[in-house]
Amino acid sequence: MPDPASSAAPNPVRGDKPPGSPGKAWGGRFEGGTDPRVEAFTESISFDARLAPHDVTGSKAHATMLAEVGLLTDDERDAIHDGLDAILAEIRAGKFPFRTELEDVHMHIESALTERIGDAGRKLHTARSRNDQVSTDLKLFVRESCETVDGLLQDLQRAFVGRCEGDLDVVIPGFTHLQRAMPVSASHSWLCWVEKLDRDRGRLRDCRARLNECPLGAAALAGTTLPIDRDRTAALMHFDRPAANSLDVSSDRDFLAEYLFALSLTATHLSQWAEEWVVWFSTEFGILSLPDAYTTGSSIMPQKRNPDVPELIRGKSARVVGALMQVMVLLKGLPTAYNRDLQEDKSPLFDAHDTVVACLELMPQIVAGATLNRERIAARLEDGFLDATALMEYAIRSGVPMRTAHGVIGKLVALCEQSSRRLADLTDAEFAEADERLVKGGSEGLRGVLGAANAAAALKSYGGGGREQVAAQIARWQKRLESK
Amino acid sequence: MPDPASSAAPNPVRGDKPPGSPGKAWGGRFEGGTDPRVEAFTESISFDARLAPHDVTGSKAHATMLAEVGLLTDDERDAIHDGLDAILAEIRAGKFPFRTELEDVHMHIESALTERIGDAGRKLHTARSRNDQVSTDLKLFVRESCETVDGLLQDLQRAFVGRCEGDLDVVIPGFTHLQRAMPVSASHSWLCWVEKLDRDRGRLRDCRARLNECPLGAAALAGTTLPIDRDRTAALMHFDRPAANSLDVSSDRDFLAEYLFALSLTATHLSQWAEEWVVWFSTEFGILSLPDAYTTGSSIMPQKRNPDVPELIRGKSARVVGALMQVMVLLKGLPTAYNRDLQEDKSPLFDAHDTVVACLELMPQIVAGATLNRERIAARLEDGFLDATALMEYAIRSGVPMRTAHGVIGKLVALCEQSSRRLADLTDAEFAEADERLVKGGSEGLRGVLGAANAAAALKSYGGGGREQVAAQIARWQKRLESK
Amino acid sequence: MPDPASSAAPNPVRGDKPPGSPGKAWGGRFEGGTDPRVEAFTESISFDARLAPHDVTGSKAHATMLAEVGLLTDDERDAIHDGLDAILAEIRAGKFPFRTELEDVHMHIESALTERIGDAGRKLHTARSRNDQVSTDLKLFVRESCETVDGLLQDLQRAFVGRCEGDLDVVIPGFTHLQRAMPVSASHSWLCWVEKLDRDRGRLRDCRARLNECPLGAAALAGTTLPIDRDRTAALMHFDRPAANSLDVSSDRDFLAEYLFALSLTATHLSQWAEEWVVWFSTEFGILSLPDAYTTGSSIMPQKRNPDVPELIRGKSARVVGALMQVMVLLKGLPTAYNRDLQEDKSPLFDAHDTVVACLELMPQIVAGATLNRERIAARLEDGFLDATALMEYAIRSGVPMRTAHGVIGKLVALCEQSSRRLADLTDAEFAEADERLVKGGSEGLRGVLGAANAAAALKSYGGGGREQVAAQIARWQKRLESK
Amino acid sequence: MPDPASSAAPNPVRGDKPPGSPGKAWGGRFEGGTDPRVEAFTESISFDARLAPHDVTGSKAHATMLAEVGLLTDDERDAIHDGLDAILAEIRAGKFPFRTELEDVHMHIESALTERIGDAGRKLHTARSRNDQVSTDLKLFVRESCETVDGLLQDLQRAFVGRCEGDLDVVIPGFTHLQRAMPVSASHSWLCWVEKLDRDRGRLRDCRARLNECPLGAAALAGTTLPIDRDRTAALMHFDRPAANSLDVSSDRDFLAEYLFALSLTATHLSQWAEEWVVWFSTEFGILSLPDAYTTGSSIMPQKRNPDVPELIRGKSARVVGALMQVMVLLKGLPTAYNRDLQEDKSPLFDAHDTVVACLELMPQIVAGATLNRERIAARLEDGFLDATALMEYAIRSGVPMRTAHGVIGKLVALCEQSSRRLADLTDAEFAEADERLVKGGSEGLRGVLGAANAAAALKSYGGGGREQVAAQIARWQKRLESK
Repeated sequence: MPDPASSAAPNPVRGDKPPGSPGKAWGGRFEGGTDPRVEAFTESISFDARLAPHDVTGSKAHATMLAEVGLLTDDERDAIHDGLDAILAEIRAGKFPFRTELEDVHMHIESALTERIGDAGRKLHTARSRNDQVSTDLKLFVRESCETVDGLLQDLQRAFVGRCEGDLDVVIPGFTHLQRAMPVSASHSWLCWVEKLDRDRGRLRDCRARLNECPLGAAALAGTTLPIDRDRTAALMHFDRPAANSLDVSSDRDFLAEYLFALSLTATHLSQWAEEWVVWFSTEFGILSLPDAYTTGSSIMPQKRNPDVPELIRGKSARVVGALMQVMVLLKGLPTAYNRDLQEDKSPLFDAHDTVVACLELMPQIVAGATLNRERIAARLEDGFLDATALMEYAIRSGVPMRTAHGVIGKLVALCEQSSRRLADLTDAEFAEADERLVKGGSEGLRGVLGAANAAAALKSYGGGGREQVAAQIARWQKRLESK
Repeated sequence: MPDPASSAAPNPVRGDKPPGSPGKAWGGRFEGGTDPRVEAFTESISFDARLAPHDVTGSKAHATMLAEVGLLTDDERDAIHDGLDAILAEIRAGKFPFRTELEDVHMHIESALTERIGDAGRKLHTARSRNDQVSTDLKLFVRESCETVDGLLQDLQRAFVGRCEGDLDVVIPGFTHLQRAMPVSASHSWLCWVEKLDRDRGRLRDCRARLNECPLGAAALAGTTLPIDRDRTAALMHFDRPAANSLDVSSDRDFLAEYLFALSLTATHLSQWAEEWVVWFSTEFGILSLPDAYTTGSSIMPQKRNPDVPELIRGKSARVVGALMQVMVLLKGLPTAYNRDLQEDKSPLFDAHDTVVACLELMPQIVAGATLNRERIAARLEDGFLDATALMEYAIRSGVPMRTAHGVIGKLVALCEQSSRRLADLTDAEFAEADERLVKGGSEGLRGVLGAANAAAALKSYGGGGREQVAAQIARWQKRLESK
Repeated sequence: MPDPASSAAPNPVRGDKPPGSPGKAWGGRFEGGTDPRVEAFTESISFDARLAPHDVTGSKAHATMLAEVGLLTDDERDAIHDGLDAILAEIRAGKFPFRTELEDVHMHIESALTERIGDAGRKLHTARSRNDQVSTDLKLFVRESCETVDGLLQDLQRAFVGRCEGDLDVVIPGFTHLQRAMPVSASHSWLCWVEKLDRDRGRLRDCRARLNECPLGAAALAGTTLPIDRDRTAALMHFDRPAANSLDVSSDRDFLAEYLFALSLTATHLSQWAEEWVVWFSTEFGILSLPDAYTTGSSIMPQKRNPDVPELIRGKSARVVGALMQVMVLLKGLPTAYNRDLQEDKSPLFDAHDTVVACLELMPQIVAGATLNRERIAARLEDGFLDATALMEYAIRSGVPMRTAHGVIGKLVALCEQSSRRLADLTDAEFAEADERLVKGGSEGLRGVLGAANAAAALKSYGGGGREQVAAQIARWQKRLESK
Repeated sequence: MPDPASSAAPNPVRGDKPPGSPGKAWGGRFEGGTDPRVEAFTESISFDARLAPHDVTGSKAHATMLAEVGLLTDDERDAIHDGLDAILAEIRAGKFPFRTELEDVHMHIESALTERIGDAGRKLHTARSRNDQVSTDLKLFVRESCETVDGLLQDLQRAFVGRCEGDLDVVIPGFTHLQRAMPVSASHSWLCWVEKLDRDRGRLRDCRARLNECPLGAAALAGTTLPIDRDRTAALMHFDRPAANSLDVSSDRDFLAEYLFALSLTATHLSQWAEEWVVWFSTEFGILSLPDAYTTGSSIMPQKRNPDVPELIRGKSARVVGALMQVMVLLKGLPTAYNRDLQEDKSPLFDAHDTVVACLELMPQIVAGATLNRERIAARLEDGFLDATALMEYAIRSGVPMRTAHGVIGKLVALCEQSSRRLADLTDAEFAEADERLVKGGSEGLRGVLGAANAAAALKSYGGGGREQVAAQIARWQKRLESK
């Protein structure tokens, strides 16, 4: 993870300071200096440096607007724009000097600007405060992040859908309670994840849409007496409109919590997928093989091949949920408007975002690279009476009320268990004894649903795990993922 | 909270059981009976009884569809409909007998139905499982709850907006860091909460829209071999469409987590409001009085008047966040499809919903009934240099660069503090000494922004706390809340 | 769950109220009545009624002390004691009338007492407040609960240890990463849980010891001007000493959070056990069978046998963690001393306690009743190269450096995989080719560690999974669990 | 925060690799190489490098034991010891090259050791696995951290106690529900925090004691076939004994969760202190002043002085609670023994530890440096009827039953409120009219408890807020904090 701050050596305080513009944004009234330990405790530059591009975006839009309303000359605006571009280039090149006593990314950039261009730099903070500035930066970050993660989710959807045609005809056991339940196409399982990820994308879209009101110009908490044009600033940064209440702006972190929740549910889905695949990768289940590149060994046991990547994805979901929780605890009981506690919103935001991004970047390869152990699956497909429900439904079609049919087939299963047989091994007489209606027109129809493959093939309902329905869903997803 | 289960005495097992329809939905294959302690441990009827209306809705739609596709006769469908209506009426009247060994609300209703109408009842569960049934019930509950809470949020918005015209001209200190910052209209504070609540409503809308895919007919995990029409069932219950993947349906609780998150952020907003009002209600702040009906006293201190209701609202926010957390922990690492762990989703859902509803039902009266202590506010309005920012912005308009102006005014504030004066008490000479530009054209303009009332009046920017902007926002909200 | 409150019908307000003793504990100064909706919102009697026995214990001790210091006569004390005993008997018999407008259990009991014995009842609340009273009740509840849960944990330890001699010679695969790793005695797994549960017991012991300072007499927040003897009250209730700071007492819920944490870690252990047994109960792993009494079936799939009880135990762990979280959120940022938010501490306490108790009451039967599928385990014990580590350690004993040995055996495993053999199937020549030292003195020693049974038998280190060490641990635990 | 990893540039793979000792600890059996993205995803060296000193401690103890049991020669042991010392010195000097493909700190050190000393290095990992190794490292870290934080808590206790004699005679209002309640010595408030912090220290002590069982030698999950002496290793590292079950060792993170809980409750206490002081620092409360060094200003409002450090302490408590939550989510539902998820335990551990340490390092200066605004406190001390409870207790001493007295004084307070008077302003006649017993022997005694100073002085009970009791507690704490 590139961190513009970490490579920075502290450098000595630069040049003379005009009145009211010392190292701090707020030094004018203070007599005692700040304790350096306090600076280290309160600084945010070590983590908010990554907001620099967004801070520059916001400042350039602000300067453009200030010039339009006459609070800056055009020359001042141009100097600011050029200065900011140069500073951002320096930051991106890793050449910008960061230092703890300048507190945060905002002061670093403004201070460097003033050093370069003098009084014009001192005018940039006109009609804004760090409260609306940091809110703007954060919204720009979250807005961009929603798009980034949406793209990665789409990539992962494509990886799942990309397997589907190839695996359509592999019938696997579907599980409930981790017990063999009914047979489904393996691709039905892949599409299950595609559905979940699609809701995740919807949440990101909603989050992005809701946050898209511009904080800039709300100033500290009350707006400003200066004649600014907040509509213009909003438009310049592609916000839908300015946010309408300055007290709200200073205290609002809804968008951040909402993004973290969206990430948490995504992480939960990834964790559930990981759990399933870890189980399926076990020697005992043996459904899947993972490529060596995504497993690791043991430092002591020479034979081990461990699904470390899925395990870590499962473990990392805790990190994202922890971040959400941190923000909920943070916000609880804070009065309006800004309180310094809010500075602690950035670490969980960045950490959860980076965690989910790292998982999503790796998952498509694992999904694409995994192999179904077709022979092994087939060899055990008849274990666990996967055809019992299809048989019960055959009984229903034969006129047995569902609850009665459930009991009838339950007894047949018990009979099989006692005699170590499968349902297909039962005789027509045994079926008839259980309920005559099962074989009233001969046993051909009945035998046509027995066996897992038959049972799977018989699944016809929309959204079900049979070949026909799964094929239709594959086609639907292929089309949807092409077009967006 | 009316609980249909709590008034129910256990009653003896009723009548004979036809094969396949014992007390349990699944008894056919089991030899050993269930341990009664296990029944007590696994039952959900004590809390899922409240889903009865939704369960009946789902079952009626299912029966309608089953009749249309020929899996029920019209007579069977009618018997089912009438039976379900009668059972629901009994439940609503508190006359329905609940008993632990029937596990859950679904089995209670189906079992009672079969008792009444015989084999038709035994056919109701055709082509569905409890997995899709409970998911349907829960979605219907959450969908309705989104609407309920949305309405309550609107009521609360109206309570805030309803105060605004009356309080528009009361200037109060705005706070950041709980320190006096800038003066704003009291109504600006009320509208701050209206904005936050509006985002809460948006989240509920999104949640409602996203969940509106019908689970019914996904059956246990794989769909069914029977010729059901899931589009029809979906339409009958006003779902937008059937959910498209049966494995997903059985395991999906996204909608529940999303609703709990929406409630958590609402509860957080209420908690923040409560914190602010508890502070404002203190003797020291003295901004607000609450009606006696919403405060309580002390069992030992005769003089106490405590803001218990806001304190409890603040405290109850923890309950909602705890419920969200419970569900996130619950879901973490569960493989597909259904696992019994999911039964534990209902308690946090109901508890969080009831908690938020209880808070929202009480808040409008508190908001409407509170009184601003106008004289007390006015008497202390000039404390804390609330006009310093307006003065700084006057300096900016006079040509002083912002950062320089910040320092200049900072020094003037320090001068005032040393001599126990306010900014308005400073002489023209003192202003001139600080920066000549402040008084270059006389001091009239400068003095026009001094004093908190002047400073508040000078706030002009969109979304700011000055009279003009706040009045515009009041009008906007009045109009919006009328129309929806 | 017996709830003394739920069976109570509201009853009309009883009799005349002397000045200063209306229904409320604090009515004297209030003009407006309380809104009934506020009563419903603020009441705690619906859940704190279960504290009644502890409340009576505290009040009796308080009265004893008050009489000793002269604030009550002996007759008054006796009247109070008799009255409280009678009231508690009524509550236990389900005959005590609860009503919402009396707020909480404390006021219910005191009010009933005054009704019975007049002015003596009005003196009971001398030199105490509800703040120290509720803290005392809660500490008594938590203290007793620590002991209850400790006993249940011991029962569960005994259930695990009780299986151990019988299962000592069953060698099962030990897993890491859910992959077969090394062979261990099945009893080694049972003792693993015994160790975890023992730490849980230690945490309960520490929690109990730390909380054992008596709050009573701290009064509202500042103590009292009356000449009470707090040492005496503490001693009467078997507290170690009175708590030493009254501001601390009113705000302290450490003991409650600590108890919830102890429960959370216990619940986590149970959840981990449940996860392991759910996996082992799958058809694929097939290590364990659970008695029918602890599994349930499916409403649609006739063949299913689901491990619902372990699944619910796993799911319920979320509930306990959610309760801990709720309390941490609740406490965050509350100033001293008492705030009404703290009333919300009881629901999570009771819920988490009841949940863990319910799980622990059920688990010993499951643990004792489960059956190891010995034949099935044995049939697959040679899968997965469980002897690879023992072989590597044989190489180490033969002089091969560990890292080198790891590589050598790794290659042998790969060789086996390519040729579908087990390590025991390799020839002496193949071993020699891998590293001559393996067979330098003949292959007898080497072959003596091959095969899972041999590999397990060879485990000798303290705390390891071999027969000898496990037997020693069984003996140690049998002795420990006898004596306490 | 010094991070030995961050300064390290990746360096090229060094030298030739002997069989079985490639870059990975487990390469022997793998065909495909590891994907570099997987290395980046799975590496822990970027955060576990800080465990290096503990890893070396563990490895040295292990080597000592291995030599004693004959698995190493004395020369090999010496070479290992010297090599490890040299490597640790390099790490401490920031000269050690870290590289992602070596995964973790354990492999870095072992690999560097083998490079230096050859085969002896390859023998170090004999009879241990990374599972027991990392558990040992973590326990050593947590054990040391318990001691570090305990010391810092003691420093903070000393800072509070250090103020107490000077502030003993400053009477401040005590609050409940943030409402003025009863008067107490300011030092009573300081000692309230000392009590809470003392329980925090107790929890750390218990955590330290419980974790002190040595994992080393439990190996991967099952122990080892080699003749190691676990008692010896345990003793060398000052553990009380070896941990007794190897499956438990590999899966146990109780100690980590317990430490995080202890930190969470400490952080909660700090947050509660911060909330209280932020409120007390407000212009309105005006009880405290903080030194400029611990406050900061506003970037826009020139007059602001914000309590940023307490606010950040309050905000950072969320971080610690979030870390606890992360670990609880992480552990939920993991089967035994080791799962790779557990790697995610380190970040929350380090983050929470560093956060609490940073807060505790700063707090003593703030506590010591704060100033009570004595004049301002005194000027408003008679607001809010702080003497009402003392008056009520005077009535009790005069024979009025408590509940009756509560009502009587309540009415007197109401009378005062109507006439804008204080209780001391009421006439004897007014007292007599309320209840004759109040003035039956003249009003001297009664007037002796009126006024906040008198009321505070009258508090006599153990642990109360009056001068005498607070002085006794100061003495008790001075003595306790001297001796330990």
